[in-house]
Amino acid sequence: MKIGVFDSGVGGLTVLRALLPRIANAEYLYLGDTARLPYGSKSQTTIARYAVSSSQFLIDQGCEFLVIACNTASALALEEIRQTAEPHGIPVVGVIGPGAAAAAAGTATRDALVVATSATVQSHAYAAACQRLGLRSLEKACPLLVPLVEEGWIDHAVTAEVVRLYLSELHQQAAEACLQPDTIVLGCTHYPLLRPVIEAAVAKLWPGAPPRVIDSAEATANEVERQLAAHTVVKNATTTHLSPPTSFFATDSVAKFCQLGTRFLGQPIGEVKLVDLGG
Amino acid sequence: MKIGVFDSGVGGLTVLRALLPRIANAEYLYLGDTARLPYGSKSQTTIARYAVSSSQFLIDQGCEFLVIACNTASALALEEIRQTAEPHGIPVVGVIGPGAAAAAAGTATRDALVVATSATVQSHAYAAACQRLGLRSLEKACPLLVPLVEEGWIDHAVTAEVVRLYLSELHQQAAEACLQPDTIVLGCTHYPLLRPVIEAAVAKLWPGAPPRVIDSAEATANEVERQLAAHTVVKNATTTHLSPPTSFFATDSVAKFCQLGTRFLGQPIGEVKLVDLGG
Repeated sequence: MKIGVFDSGVGGLTVLRALLPRIANAEYLYLGDTARLPYGSKSQTTIARYAVSSSQFLIDQGCEFLVIACNTASALALEEIRQTAEPHGIPVVGVIGPGAAAAAAGTATRDALVVATSATVQSHAYAAACQRLGLRSLEKACPLLVPLVEEGWIDHAVTAEVVRLYLSELHQQAAEACLQPDTIVLGCTHYPLLRPVIEAAVAKLWPGAPPRVIDSAEATANEVERQLAAHTVVKNATTTHLSPPTSFFATDSVAKFCQLGTRFLGQPIGEVKLVDLGG
Repeated sequence: MKIGVFDSGVGGLTVLRALLPRIANAEYLYLGDTARLPYGSKSQTTIARYAVSSSQFLIDQGCEFLVIACNTASALALEEIRQTAEPHGIPVVGVIGPGAAAAAAGTATRDALVVATSATVQSHAYAAACQRLGLRSLEKACPLLVPLVEEGWIDHAVTAEVVRLYLSELHQQAAEACLQPDTIVLGCTHYPLLRPVIEAAVAKLWPGAPPRVIDSAEATANEVERQLAAHTVVKNATTTHLSPPTSFFATDSVAKFCQLGTRFLGQPIGEVKLVDLGG
């Protein structure tokens, strides 16, 4: 079973990281469309065009299952990707549905907060997914968090201040909307690296009962495992690889992908192949 | 005379803004390659590919003179753009040479500082241009400044702190290198919007004789005027338009281009046409 994992950059490696121990008897292909990132500040038409050509690349490489490990592409182009993949019998799983489902499973108040990129928030894909599950939600765009993570300012006073400013606004909007959130979804695969900073800010803003931070990478990996079990490709201890074969592709500088990606994957990245998707 | 002005985004509008009053009897075409921005964090190969296809678009539209109002493209792809344009007899002016020349004209100590994007700094194009003019220089990448400007945090405490941190490092590196800079070049067309914040930080770090801040947009417009005078298309009071005809093109959301661009151009932007350069 070849599983294709796609993101605009290295952030989706947090999803791959969650998949590897769960579904170890598979082969993985990861594509980061780094020449055209970031998706989060672009229009729906452009995001869909980039996401479809990236998915097509993974299909051409023989992938039998696609994981869209990019919140922006999941929010704005999942339908277009499905139209490309499903005629080949290839299932597609994005990160929004599993993230919202994890929020629904964990909330007692039925009120959730979502932090994400501008494009994801403008799509209101999380709000729609939460609503389908009976949750009220409030979304907040945090455009500076991706550049701060890419600059490596993970544990930095400026990042803590930016996070505090964004979450303060969200806190106030939640109060104005009379929400009682007990859950906050990280709606961008870069944000798990800021989890300690985000949790610290949340604890200060909601001192009584701080909302629980939910990372959609784990939730997405669980959903992929569930769907693959239904497809009879079951995790099997006797044939499990200790380290499943994984190929990495990027559309821009492979050196930068390796350097930045190691932090997201949590282990060194071997060879990265440069691919040209046009444009 | 049709003058094509190209940038990855809206930043180059600061160059167009400087050109309009200087060369008023021309027609302007401005292209922002917004679908593929930012260039500043990408590799030379990718930047050159994007810059050449953007320049080709302006040539196809009938431009007779090209202004590369993008520091990153000027630093990494000017040669490739010239190879595309010069067979058609189209002169090409970038922003690096004029920026370095303005620094050389204004410095007494012959020591200059440059702040720019990562790709521009890694190319050392400013250092090379300064060296050709007999200047010593020190370059500093400031990757967070473009996202901060795009977020609209122009006059914001976080931006002031980020600017202070970057310039403090530059101040220390200059001291270690025994430089006595009296000039600091804004090597990115987004940075003029942060000029007051940058000047305030510079004044605190160099309290005796703060380096003078140089904006390469003005210097570039002067160089274009000089070259066009040599081409006999001289500014002529009798045929001068009050407001030269200007067409705007973008490869992504025209709404975002209008909204963000107005701040850079200093006047409202009318119609923006969406173009597809592939990719």
